[in-house]
Amino acid sequence: MAYELYYWDGIQGRGEFVRLALEEAGADYIDVSRGPASEGQGMRAMFAVMESKLKAHIPLAPPFLKDGDLVISHVANILMYLGPKLGLAPEDQGHRHVVNGLQLTITDLVAEVHDTHHPIATSKYYEEQKEEAKARAAEFLDNRMPKFLGYFERVLEQNPKGPIHIFGNRLTYVDLSLFQVFEGLRYAFPRATAHLSDEYPHLAALRETVAKRPNIARYLASERRIPFNEDDIFRHYPELDRSAA
Amino acid sequence: MAYELYYWDGIQGRGEFVRLALEEAGADYIDVSRGPASEGQGMRAMFAVMESKLKAHIPLAPPFLKDGDLVISHVANILMYLGPKLGLAPEDQGHRHVVNGLQLTITDLVAEVHDTHHPIATSKYYEEQKEEAKARAAEFLDNRMPKFLGYFERVLEQNPKGPIHIFGNRLTYVDLSLFQVFEGLRYAFPRATAHLSDEYPHLAALRETVAKRPNIARYLASERRIPFNEDDIFRHYPELDRSAA
Repeated sequence: MAYELYYWDGIQGRGEFVRLALEEAGADYIDVSRGPASEGQGMRAMFAVMESKLKAHIPLAPPFLKDGDLVISHVANILMYLGPKLGLAPEDQGHRHVVNGLQLTITDLVAEVHDTHHPIATSKYYEEQKEEAKARAAEFLDNRMPKFLGYFERVLEQNPKGPIHIFGNRLTYVDLSLFQVFEGLRYAFPRATAHLSDEYPHLAALRETVAKRPNIARYLASERRIPFNEDDIFRHYPELDRSAA
Repeated sequence: MAYELYYWDGIQGRGEFVRLALEEAGADYIDVSRGPASEGQGMRAMFAVMESKLKAHIPLAPPFLKDGDLVISHVANILMYLGPKLGLAPEDQGHRHVVNGLQLTITDLVAEVHDTHHPIATSKYYEEQKEEAKARAAEFLDNRMPKFLGYFERVLEQNPKGPIHIFGNRLTYVDLSLFQVFEGLRYAFPRATAHLSDEYPHLAALRETVAKRPNIARYLASERRIPFNEDDIFRHYPELDRSAA
């Protein structure tokens, strides 16, 4: 039976980290919110799960994955569940938790990227918190982005199996997520990331490795890959980027 | 061999969610940062792990848990790892992911609580972002706290095994974490939470259930339970609370 991915239509968002894993593995999945309402899909199908007054342990927010009767929420949790099934996780159970720890650090980074344009209130428009967003984005670019990217570069550097992959000597879902973060940051902050490949060579090489994988390359060229846009987590607002030199 | 918990000394913080699970289970553990430097413990032992230039997959930030050679980072990940070993997780593997999803929703809530006093920059003092903190705290109390607590109340209400526990009919680590959230919110925002027990009766009952468990009651009365304070995640700044009626 196909996996059912539930996420907002029209953005890559957090759903994209799950899509990349499903696409790399060539897994059979339905992107439910983007499907036709006539077949019981579309956004209403997503809200029907979240707003159910009967179901047990409904998720608070998307993305969530349905695998038969099981409903699993949160990106890192979905990936930890799918990883072994898709051949994108280590064999050892302890190592799976190490990989999950790396993914959760990406979760934190993504939340901070979101807050660069929404530092005060998710319920309000960006335009209503633009000044605060400038301050938060400056902090992100000066301190937080280097902290996170420097960390991942170091984990690659210190990988006993070499810096090709973030864990061991095989592709895991964390590699795919790091590709997505690299792409997203370059989209959102082109000036601040102009020298990213020089600053973080292992991460840049990993980005290339992932982009060249046949299933990923096919996916990125397809209509299934939604372009980055300003309703998304990674948003390109020039006023939040570093000033031109 | 004893579990080794690594976390900042002097605060409950994110480490507390792990401590509550270890204490409930009566597990043998060392709170490394709070131990004597003469025995190789203390904060330096924590930094030695994080700053290692050799070790594989070092964590970016505490808390992390050492179990033999394995180093596991992030609260939800540590709890997912420990849960089955401590008898605080469901038997079924799929259900463990459902429980992990609930815990990750708590992770999100805790991050939002942190940002009520640090909406712009973790690297700066609260006093430098006080005005923005007031705006973010108001948003949190008006919209986000009710959203999260309403969600957990509903999950308790819709638990097919009854509203005593968040999952199934036995205690899991998520119950312990919900206790901590309830306590923390009442400490940080006494005015905004004055009627919390009326608004969220199942959560309030769960709080009582947890507080009365013998190992938890003993722990809370011990010196191992660090009091809430203003270096912590849950901080009581009266100016961020709702105004007196």
